[in-house]
Amino acid sequence: MDERTLSRLLDDVAAGRASVDEALEGLRDLPYESVPGARVDHHRELRTGQPEAVYGPGKTPAQVADVARALASRSAGAVLVTRAAPEQAEAVLEAVPGARYDERSGLVLVKRAGAGAPPGEVAVVSAGTSDQPVAEEAALTIEASGCAALRIGDVGVAGVHRVLEHRGDFERVDCVVVVAGMEGALPSVIAGLTSTPVVAVPTSVGYGASFEGLAALLGMLSSCAPGVAVVNIDNGFGAAQVALRIVRALRRAEA
Amino acid sequence: MDERTLSRLLDDVAAGRASVDEALEGLRDLPYESVPGARVDHHRELRTGQPEAVYGPGKTPAQVADVARALASRSAGAVLVTRAAPEQAEAVLEAVPGARYDERSGLVLVKRAGAGAPPGEVAVVSAGTSDQPVAEEAALTIEASGCAALRIGDVGVAGVHRVLEHRGDFERVDCVVVVAGMEGALPSVIAGLTSTPVVAVPTSVGYGASFEGLAALLGMLSSCAPGVAVVNIDNGFGAAQVALRIVRALRRAEA
Amino acid sequence: MDERTLSRLLDDVAAGRASVDEALEGLRDLPYESVPGARVDHHRELRTGQPEAVYGPGKTPAQVADVARALASRSAGAVLVTRAAPEQAEAVLEAVPGARYDERSGLVLVKRAGAGAPPGEVAVVSAGTSDQPVAEEAALTIEASGCAALRIGDVGVAGVHRVLEHRGDFERVDCVVVVAGMEGALPSVIAGLTSTPVVAVPTSVGYGASFEGLAALLGMLSSCAPGVAVVNIDNGFGAAQVALRIVRALRRAEA
Amino acid sequence: MDERTLSRLLDDVAAGRASVDEALEGLRDLPYESVPGARVDHHRELRTGQPEAVYGPGKTPAQVADVARALASRSAGAVLVTRAAPEQAEAVLEAVPGARYDERSGLVLVKRAGAGAPPGEVAVVSAGTSDQPVAEEAALTIEASGCAALRIGDVGVAGVHRVLEHRGDFERVDCVVVVAGMEGALPSVIAGLTSTPVVAVPTSVGYGASFEGLAALLGMLSSCAPGVAVVNIDNGFGAAQVALRIVRALRRAEA
Amino acid sequence: MDERTLSRLLDDVAAGRASVDEALEGLRDLPYESVPGARVDHHRELRTGQPEAVYGPGKTPAQVADVARALASRSAGAVLVTRAAPEQAEAVLEAVPGARYDERSGLVLVKRAGAGAPPGEVAVVSAGTSDQPVAEEAALTIEASGCAALRIGDVGVAGVHRVLEHRGDFERVDCVVVVAGMEGALPSVIAGLTSTPVVAVPTSVGYGASFEGLAALLGMLSSCAPGVAVVNIDNGFGAAQVALRIVRALRRAEA
Amino acid sequence: MDERTLSRLLDDVAAGRASVDEALEGLRDLPYESVPGARVDHHRELRTGQPEAVYGPGKTPAQVADVARALASRSAGAVLVTRAAPEQAEAVLEAVPGARYDERSGLVLVKRAGAGAPPGEVAVVSAGTSDQPVAEEAALTIEASGCAALRIGDVGVAGVHRVLEHRGDFERVDCVVVVAGMEGALPSVIAGLTSTPVVAVPTSVGYGASFEGLAALLGMLSSCAPGVAVVNIDNGFGAAQVALRIVRALRRAEA
Amino acid sequence: MDERTLSRLLDDVAAGRASVDEALEGLRDLPYESVPGARVDHHRELRTGQPEAVYGPGKTPAQVADVARALASRSAGAVLVTRAAPEQAEAVLEAVPGARYDERSGLVLVKRAGAGAPPGEVAVVSAGTSDQPVAEEAALTIEASGCAALRIGDVGVAGVHRVLEHRGDFERVDCVVVVAGMEGALPSVIAGLTSTPVVAVPTSVGYGASFEGLAALLGMLSSCAPGVAVVNIDNGFGAAQVALRIVRALRRAEA
Amino acid sequence: MDERTLSRLLDDVAAGRASVDEALEGLRDLPYESVPGARVDHHRELRTGQPEAVYGPGKTPAQVADVARALASRSAGAVLVTRAAPEQAEAVLEAVPGARYDERSGLVLVKRAGAGAPPGEVAVVSAGTSDQPVAEEAALTIEASGCAALRIGDVGVAGVHRVLEHRGDFERVDCVVVVAGMEGALPSVIAGLTSTPVVAVPTSVGYGASFEGLAALLGMLSSCAPGVAVVNIDNGFGAAQVALRIVRALRRAEA
Repeated sequence: MDERTLSRLLDDVAAGRASVDEALEGLRDLPYESVPGARVDHHRELRTGQPEAVYGPGKTPAQVADVARALASRSAGAVLVTRAAPEQAEAVLEAVPGARYDERSGLVLVKRAGAGAPPGEVAVVSAGTSDQPVAEEAALTIEASGCAALRIGDVGVAGVHRVLEHRGDFERVDCVVVVAGMEGALPSVIAGLTSTPVVAVPTSVGYGASFEGLAALLGMLSSCAPGVAVVNIDNGFGAAQVALRIVRALRRAEA
Repeated sequence: MDERTLSRLLDDVAAGRASVDEALEGLRDLPYESVPGARVDHHRELRTGQPEAVYGPGKTPAQVADVARALASRSAGAVLVTRAAPEQAEAVLEAVPGARYDERSGLVLVKRAGAGAPPGEVAVVSAGTSDQPVAEEAALTIEASGCAALRIGDVGVAGVHRVLEHRGDFERVDCVVVVAGMEGALPSVIAGLTSTPVVAVPTSVGYGASFEGLAALLGMLSSCAPGVAVVNIDNGFGAAQVALRIVRALRRAEA
Repeated sequence: MDERTLSRLLDDVAAGRASVDEALEGLRDLPYESVPGARVDHHRELRTGQPEAVYGPGKTPAQVADVARALASRSAGAVLVTRAAPEQAEAVLEAVPGARYDERSGLVLVKRAGAGAPPGEVAVVSAGTSDQPVAEEAALTIEASGCAALRIGDVGVAGVHRVLEHRGDFERVDCVVVVAGMEGALPSVIAGLTSTPVVAVPTSVGYGASFEGLAALLGMLSSCAPGVAVVNIDNGFGAAQVALRIVRALRRAEA
Repeated sequence: MDERTLSRLLDDVAAGRASVDEALEGLRDLPYESVPGARVDHHRELRTGQPEAVYGPGKTPAQVADVARALASRSAGAVLVTRAAPEQAEAVLEAVPGARYDERSGLVLVKRAGAGAPPGEVAVVSAGTSDQPVAEEAALTIEASGCAALRIGDVGVAGVHRVLEHRGDFERVDCVVVVAGMEGALPSVIAGLTSTPVVAVPTSVGYGASFEGLAALLGMLSSCAPGVAVVNIDNGFGAAQVALRIVRALRRAEA
Repeated sequence: MDERTLSRLLDDVAAGRASVDEALEGLRDLPYESVPGARVDHHRELRTGQPEAVYGPGKTPAQVADVARALASRSAGAVLVTRAAPEQAEAVLEAVPGARYDERSGLVLVKRAGAGAPPGEVAVVSAGTSDQPVAEEAALTIEASGCAALRIGDVGVAGVHRVLEHRGDFERVDCVVVVAGMEGALPSVIAGLTSTPVVAVPTSVGYGASFEGLAALLGMLSSCAPGVAVVNIDNGFGAAQVALRIVRALRRAEA
Repeated sequence: MDERTLSRLLDDVAAGRASVDEALEGLRDLPYESVPGARVDHHRELRTGQPEAVYGPGKTPAQVADVARALASRSAGAVLVTRAAPEQAEAVLEAVPGARYDERSGLVLVKRAGAGAPPGEVAVVSAGTSDQPVAEEAALTIEASGCAALRIGDVGVAGVHRVLEHRGDFERVDCVVVVAGMEGALPSVIAGLTSTPVVAVPTSVGYGASFEGLAALLGMLSSCAPGVAVVNIDNGFGAAQVALRIVRALRRAEA
Repeated sequence: MDERTLSRLLDDVAAGRASVDEALEGLRDLPYESVPGARVDHHRELRTGQPEAVYGPGKTPAQVADVARALASRSAGAVLVTRAAPEQAEAVLEAVPGARYDERSGLVLVKRAGAGAPPGEVAVVSAGTSDQPVAEEAALTIEASGCAALRIGDVGVAGVHRVLEHRGDFERVDCVVVVAGMEGALPSVIAGLTSTPVVAVPTSVGYGASFEGLAALLGMLSSCAPGVAVVNIDNGFGAAQVALRIVRALRRAEA
Repeated sequence: MDERTLSRLLDDVAAGRASVDEALEGLRDLPYESVPGARVDHHRELRTGQPEAVYGPGKTPAQVADVARALASRSAGAVLVTRAAPEQAEAVLEAVPGARYDERSGLVLVKRAGAGAPPGEVAVVSAGTSDQPVAEEAALTIEASGCAALRIGDVGVAGVHRVLEHRGDFERVDCVVVVAGMEGALPSVIAGLTSTPVVAVPTSVGYGASFEGLAALLGMLSSCAPGVAVVNIDNGFGAAQVALRIVRALRRAEA
């Protein structure tokens, strides 16, 4: 029941064409019925402020391309395909002009937010070279929303001086995304150095008992530095979304 | 090496009492030596903007009381003891005038931030009555920093209408902390309704296969709604710290 | 916004006291605002056909008693408190006349559905004496809804003849709830003997490697007999709810 | 040993044609002896009302084809091969005329139940596109028994309005099968909206900490909405079997 | 229905005291109905050769005592209560004359097999003093069946010479039960020294990462010495049952 | 130091060619030094009565072939390669005349025990067709030792009549090896029917929550039927070794 | 068979009182027979250089006291009881003069190594006050061997400056034992600063998802700093033993 | 801020070109600013005494080759690439003259420490042939540092005599690295025989319930022999690093 229907119903009541009881009956189940915007996916962007994203795994290349094309034609903002396999990426690149593919992170950017001053800056710190695909997924997602991403790489806790050098950056940016595998200790060290919000991303990098990122995940959740927010293993996209929620709130606060 | 020592050394150089080489030698290992502030714990508050907190378990009542008294005498902000057992709380209450104890959450507030307009507002949503001790730990920690906490209780996904009712609240506040046990689905639903930052706290509430909060933890990490930040099981304190980092960033942005 | 408010608004429109636009404005956000029934919990019973239940753990005796009294005063059907500790049960028994407590299962029946022919019959089969508290939780929940519960005890797979004896019962009833710990194999055997819906409840009964019911849970989920529905460990209440959904559907089908 | 044989034996005793000892000998192992139907597999269908199904993994293409052909020649109902690899499917399609293969779900339908009014209707709801192969396994299995399957796709909890729209469908059908990966919260929301039996299928869809469906499985088992029945991860076939047990019970109840 | 009853029924038919139809009625559902021995638990002893045992946990003292008394009055062999709490043991000792309680293992021996040469000998080896309660559960269960138990204690792999000293014992006995916690390596070493059947019992003895016996359990299952049979954690009773099956088979082979 | 060396040393002492002190020196560390048989692997067969086996994974085809050839040339009994990949098998078949390869179980039989009456018989029961490769690994290993293997296939607990039919077989053989995946309930049912030793082998067959055999493993360890001995997941070879230890003990007992 | 027996046997051969064959027979099973020192536990100290330790849990106070008294009377070095409950400690303190009890770590020192220059120094670093009981268990065990223990407390990675201050200590000592709960990141940071051997002890300190020390354990095993040696959760005693092996090797190297 | 800058600043103070306050200001944040050596990776070798190592997985062949070439040009010691895939190894071999590749362990040695007497000797013991790639990774890493590696292979606990034979070796070397899969019991046995430091490496070798090395890992952590240091699963490189820290400490102690 959309606004037009509702309006017509009220007109009928006003005009005496419908009794109050009849109108009441028609309205009773309204909370459960079709709400304007529910069926049209790009309303979601307005509702939560996030660009549309398509999760690649388990879909055929054609399915991914179709959804991407549909979203790109309707959306004002960016459209992303995450964890895209090469053949999915190829299908999207054919279907949507201007799409780009970052093979190591598996991210397809179907559309990039326009020019203008970036609304904020997020630092994306990675502990080792092997963590970079996940960090890149985060950085590209952040940039796709028109926000700046400051990439800081190869900053492991076993050489703690490199971390200390970047203390000024951590304080300056709006949010710090920290990507680390193995023991996942980097967010604890960084959160101990700065009051900026810290989002931790465990990666599946590591020998046997890292158990595909479980060690890093549990370590980050158990951080002795208070105020570390954690997302799923290898989920650079999700970390970027957390950071972007904060950036948007900051810009609203300034406005 | 504190600032006074450093100052004296430079005076010596300026006065010719020490050669440049001698001074150089004295400064060489400075990055690794005693840094001003490192030994005095209340500098940490200034560095990361967080009140001091003492983790109760594994300490004797006397140890807890001693640390709390020391921190309270030096700190301008609040001092918290988390997970305090009744006998620990009792010791703190005796040692520090004005301390308060919330038995269900185990939180002792040794000192509360003074009056003045609250710098922000955080919604603390809990799914069921059994989740309330954890939610209260979050809310009290938020209030201890002088920030307002909007408590919204008994909002389970099995009665999704109650969630929808609070959509306006979620949009208005600076951050939403969502506390839920069992399947932990509430953050997904709320994050789908609002663009405000969402911090999810799994609780250990539930029958057998919730495995002391593991079900809720994994569910929140695997949320289909992008941008959900997760903290440790039952860690209301940690969620509050994440929220407070965001609130402080917002106030700095406004300034 | 309850029905009275809605009715008054429509009266105003009918009487010309409010314009259609004004009414439209008032109704616009209705899907997200206070829905009739959302705040009043006993509407839920009508919506899903289930009696109200209170989960005991993590609540104070006073909280449990208050909720139980409130529900009992408004609800036409039964009210249950699950996993009630003795002191919680005592508080409820004082607060609500006619309440009964089954100590081994921890169930408090605050109110029992009235007389009349039972609308259905559910067999509750337990593998060993140690599984009986969970089976009793299921049976009492079923009876609280006015349905008959056929208790069949001590039917282990290591003495498969006892299972075979009850084949007729399994065929006759509306649903079979099977409660078993250790290896949890009983549902497979029973589901292989009957076409009646089978609901399996793993229990935490067993030596070390049953891991508090994990062995039985995984076994039931992995059953080689197709069509076994599983609920949480020790969750007799939940199994009863699954059975009652089926019984109500059967009665509606007959009507 | 059927009743006729038994009757003849007792006649012999009554008539003195057999001694008591001889009869005793013949009866001694009766509980353990060959029961009519045990050796002939298609009797199982009569006993439990389920079509025959072959589990593909671990069998050679030839083995699968042989079993399928044998079952198809004897069975009045449908024959299914689940999780069939392409080469297994090919072997079955050659061996049994009229067989069909759904590649994404891996299901081979060797035989389809005849025409006539469908005996019931089951809604198969999936949370995301990546969950569709499992949902399709469920839907095709339901249809193979001559029952109608109502496919409802892309209904995630992060956009809860889409769920609300289908409330009428949930109430109308005989059973709702809900297929969801990631946090697996959809069954909780749906079970909170309807009194119809709900069968939940966790899928292995999701990032790292979904641990191949474990997050969704634990979430569904820990559902705060009472009366959710759970089957194994990715087990669309099993969910369909639970639903079909309910549908058959409903039709028997009506008869 | 035991053989005597069956025999009497047939006598009645032979003598004309019962009609064939009457007898038929009594026998009709025999394969599925009450089988000789199924209802009367002590027939199980004859069927599988094992003494009756009652699993204590989850039963009231009265329930345990009732079952123990019933079994003791009917059984020719031993009756055991495993994992009996002190108050359960007390109830049994009162109810059944001659019962004995071993508090550390929690075993109650309600009845002991009579004199005569022991039918066999089983070595029960334990790695450390902390493993002895489980070893004692095994040894007492073995002795309750009239078999001899050779206790060999404090034989850890970190002092491998002690193991070597007992090589002769291992070769002589009918079966070796090896009880070990921590890393559970003892069965591997012993199985490498002897061709006698080896039954391994992991115990829950050990620091943190032994995870309540999981380390020992996985170690024993992964033994590099072929032919190690494993039972559940802390399950001395179960190991004894495996050993007794072997001893009985040996005695039958000799006969 | 083998017996010849030892004998020569004693000869020298007897002949006065070596002093007692010199001999003592040579013998001092004998317990730790080269023991006759330690370096020559085929002595192990004599010591533990088991044929030599080579574990394939992680070795190059050449390594496997070399070890197999060496063992085959020295050993009187059988030589087995377990889990052999096709290229490893090929290398062994070229290197050792008379070797055979069973591709589904991955077993290579390098040498088969000669003719003569089989010393015993072991039943190898498998629950489903998918469990057969593991069952075949067990059966072939048993036969390689000259013992008879009675294969009983497709005996699932969901059709419990098939199990009952084979009760006579279970009683007659020396040992029953039961191979089952999914919920792994078959050993419980069989152990409830017979007093023969039962060895249970969980397999990795099953949908998601069977977790590669974990469900079956935990189920078998938690069996409610006392006296079930368990081996590692998919370890048909290990189960055969347990059975052969029992068979050899039986034959020694008869002798 | 000890050296005296061996010597006598050789004398007999030399004197012709025993034939070579008789001697050979007596020596044949020597590798498996009683080795000098195997039965007398205090020889183990000589063999591995470690003081005797008794693991408390699962033993009666009397058992603990008996073993401690026996060891103390024979041993030249220290005797320790680990994880002693108060009543066990009390029994030991009564039985053995001079024993001391550290209640928080549960360690009883039955005997302390005498005076003289400490043979080495080990740093025992703990991350938080809650980790101190485990650190104290390590430090006391080290001191019991006559070695010096340098306690460094409250050195968390969230305040990385405190770690840097102690760099000189880490370089000077023979070994660094690092005790940390929660995310367990401290060993990575320390191992990145020093070339001294680092032994990491995870503790069970932390909120829910630290899972009783699992998070710290996995983190330490997955350390990005190479050369971190890990012991069991809460195992301060074990860490001390690793450190002492290194200290003894260092002293032997110097000698 | 490097030494030159610091020197210039002090010159300015000495020359009166800068006031003490100005200099103080410039030095204030020095602990957090660029430390000499932090950015230049080969300083790390000097700081911790370890050769540079590159972790291969997750990097492109070009990335690996670039890092290896850079390190090799600057480093005096060895450079290693661990877990190198063949195409990564190929790229490194092309880029750096003299590099060697061990395919089974995946180790690339880019540079080997020069001639001269090896500074120490480490025994690398492996339990089975399948454990050899991990053992080889350890041995080659040890040799890359100019230390000698004594390889002892095929020493399983099921044939404990082989272990005993090498007791002299264990006592003589500086450290024993023990590599074992399956139940991982070998380190316990060896640590019981020697006082030399023992480093245990679990491997992922084994049937199902070894769970990719988890069984061995937990077993080694739970070792009943005190003083066993454990590293990550399959982490031969890490074990070598632990051993090399000990060897270097020994050589320093001797100096």
